[in-house]
Amino acid sequence: MTLQDLISKIQPLDEAAMQTARARQDDLTKPRGSLGQLESLSVQIAGITGQARQKIEHKVVITMAGDHGVVAEGVSAYPSEVTPQMVMNFVSGGAAINVLARHVGARVVIVDMGVASEIEHPAVVNKKIALGTNNIAQGPAMSHQQAIQSIEAGISVVEAEIEKGLDIVATGDMGIGNTSPSAAIAAAITGRSVQEITGRGAGIDDAGLQRKINAIQKALEVNRPNPKDGLDVLAKVGGFEIGGLTGAILAAAARRKPVVVDGFISTAAAMIAVSLAPAARPYLIAAHRSQELGHQIMLEWLDLQPLLDLDMRLGEGTGAALALSLAEAACKILDEMATFSEAGVSDKE
Amino acid sequence: MTLQDLISKIQPLDEAAMQTARARQDDLTKPRGSLGQLESLSVQIAGITGQARQKIEHKVVITMAGDHGVVAEGVSAYPSEVTPQMVMNFVSGGAAINVLARHVGARVVIVDMGVASEIEHPAVVNKKIALGTNNIAQGPAMSHQQAIQSIEAGISVVEAEIEKGLDIVATGDMGIGNTSPSAAIAAAITGRSVQEITGRGAGIDDAGLQRKINAIQKALEVNRPNPKDGLDVLAKVGGFEIGGLTGAILAAAARRKPVVVDGFISTAAAMIAVSLAPAARPYLIAAHRSQELGHQIMLEWLDLQPLLDLDMRLGEGTGAALALSLAEAACKILDEMATFSEAGVSDKE
Repeated sequence: MTLQDLISKIQPLDEAAMQTARARQDDLTKPRGSLGQLESLSVQIAGITGQARQKIEHKVVITMAGDHGVVAEGVSAYPSEVTPQMVMNFVSGGAAINVLARHVGARVVIVDMGVASEIEHPAVVNKKIALGTNNIAQGPAMSHQQAIQSIEAGISVVEAEIEKGLDIVATGDMGIGNTSPSAAIAAAITGRSVQEITGRGAGIDDAGLQRKINAIQKALEVNRPNPKDGLDVLAKVGGFEIGGLTGAILAAAARRKPVVVDGFISTAAAMIAVSLAPAARPYLIAAHRSQELGHQIMLEWLDLQPLLDLDMRLGEGTGAALALSLAEAACKILDEMATFSEAGVSDKE
Repeated sequence: MTLQDLISKIQPLDEAAMQTARARQDDLTKPRGSLGQLESLSVQIAGITGQARQKIEHKVVITMAGDHGVVAEGVSAYPSEVTPQMVMNFVSGGAAINVLARHVGARVVIVDMGVASEIEHPAVVNKKIALGTNNIAQGPAMSHQQAIQSIEAGISVVEAEIEKGLDIVATGDMGIGNTSPSAAIAAAITGRSVQEITGRGAGIDDAGLQRKINAIQKALEVNRPNPKDGLDVLAKVGGFEIGGLTGAILAAAARRKPVVVDGFISTAAAMIAVSLAPAARPYLIAAHRSQELGHQIMLEWLDLQPLLDLDMRLGEGTGAALALSLAEAACKILDEMATFSEAGVSDKE
């Protein structure tokens, strides 16, 4: 499916399903509203799927990897070789996302969107657009055509997973240097300053942070992305895994699947997705507030309230994996709890 | 075991186990510190159990029920008959705590600490001290002897569960009117005003909130609990389920089991426990920040940082059940993730 076809398919949430879900929440054996965000989450998911009650069985974390030419500017605490090394760590099941996905009963789909070395492994979905992006401090990250290609690759990944069974999807990323394009995207779209948005990523020191801010500033000056055009922003200062995640988010919305957005990089992808298709926004569930500076500004632009705030800043989909479990819990509450009349419990006087 | 024997058995956390856990966290394939509170939680649990790495298999939610004479003052939105009705809902598996405990793989132990009617059901642990407390607005909730009895009952419940297998315990409560004694405990111990601490509980209206504040104020004036003596506070303005939870917390600490403290009522019990045994404090894990007014003041007095903040205010152990899953996730991260050398991943430059 092409990008424009898909965007045109994204529908508003199902109000009738939400009303039915809300009414049932209010009839369950607890004070109304006393389960807070679990209640609103269950209602949102009802609106997304169009079913008031549901069982979440197939949980899928899609972790997309890519490399970034901007690493040449000295913006990262780790070398680019860590990207393919971590992809192999995902394959072996030893990374944080593997542990947390197992814990919550989700499967992990690992996608090579643009790692800067060849990865050939049957457990890695090969959607490589190129061997890493160009250095955004010197010119565009990718061509306009590659931006579309990366989004369409993300769409195809979700479509394939829906074939296998997918009730809810979580986004994740891996890519040394990818907080830089993410910060550039956020600064371009929100108009906020690079200083307010740029954090230490995987843990760069003070001098590195200054280099990073300078590189992002330069990327915005050199490329002048159009803040109103998500595709232009993605092509000029984005990344291949960010494009892939954008596609994954749009595909989930088009297919009425809830999508749990992880931290800084995934939220940058969500901003591109919502720029391209504002109707996708209600399909988003913000997993957590990342410790990465600027994430809160991104969440505010998207008008999303995160479920968790655990000072995490790892990426990979780790925050989203934990939030998958909360989303499942929310749906179970709505589906499995007894009502006042079923349980013979007296309601409020 | 008597209360004083037990208190004398509570030891400091195991520093060596914590150092081993910390060192391993720093060697796992992620930027150091990037899993935030999951990392510190795993280190705390190592210190609690004395084992750097562990599998959490047996998770137990202990939900204690009791009634409260202060309901006569019109402090609650629901009638006292709801307490035994909800106990039977717990038995049938239809309450929120049942759904969430099943979701996280925990078993629920339901304890009658002082429900105001006879409950005879094999699935309910009978530790009834009396048929509800006396009205604290007119005199002490219970005798000094009953306060000790309720704590020792809580200890015996945890001891029995440890026999069956218990790696981590979560506290929960049910008792119409029990936010009133909990607020009275918090006001007595912290010295903060009743207005700052008293919330709407299960959802009382403005006039009811004023009655509730007046009743708690009167309870403190009539009883004059000694803020330095947790037993005196419990006896004068507490409740039987609060005493039971105090015992459960102390027993967990004495047996080196992590204890996940739920919301407003459980935190009041934790305050009594820490008043009696300051050494118990490091064994506590605060599950969530309740929406109930005053809970934050209680958490600050205990110097605890909650894991979740989902606008919940149900009790029963619902917040604690969700947090059990986070504690388990934290331990799995420490136990199951690959190190940099194991995975062949380059460390920070």
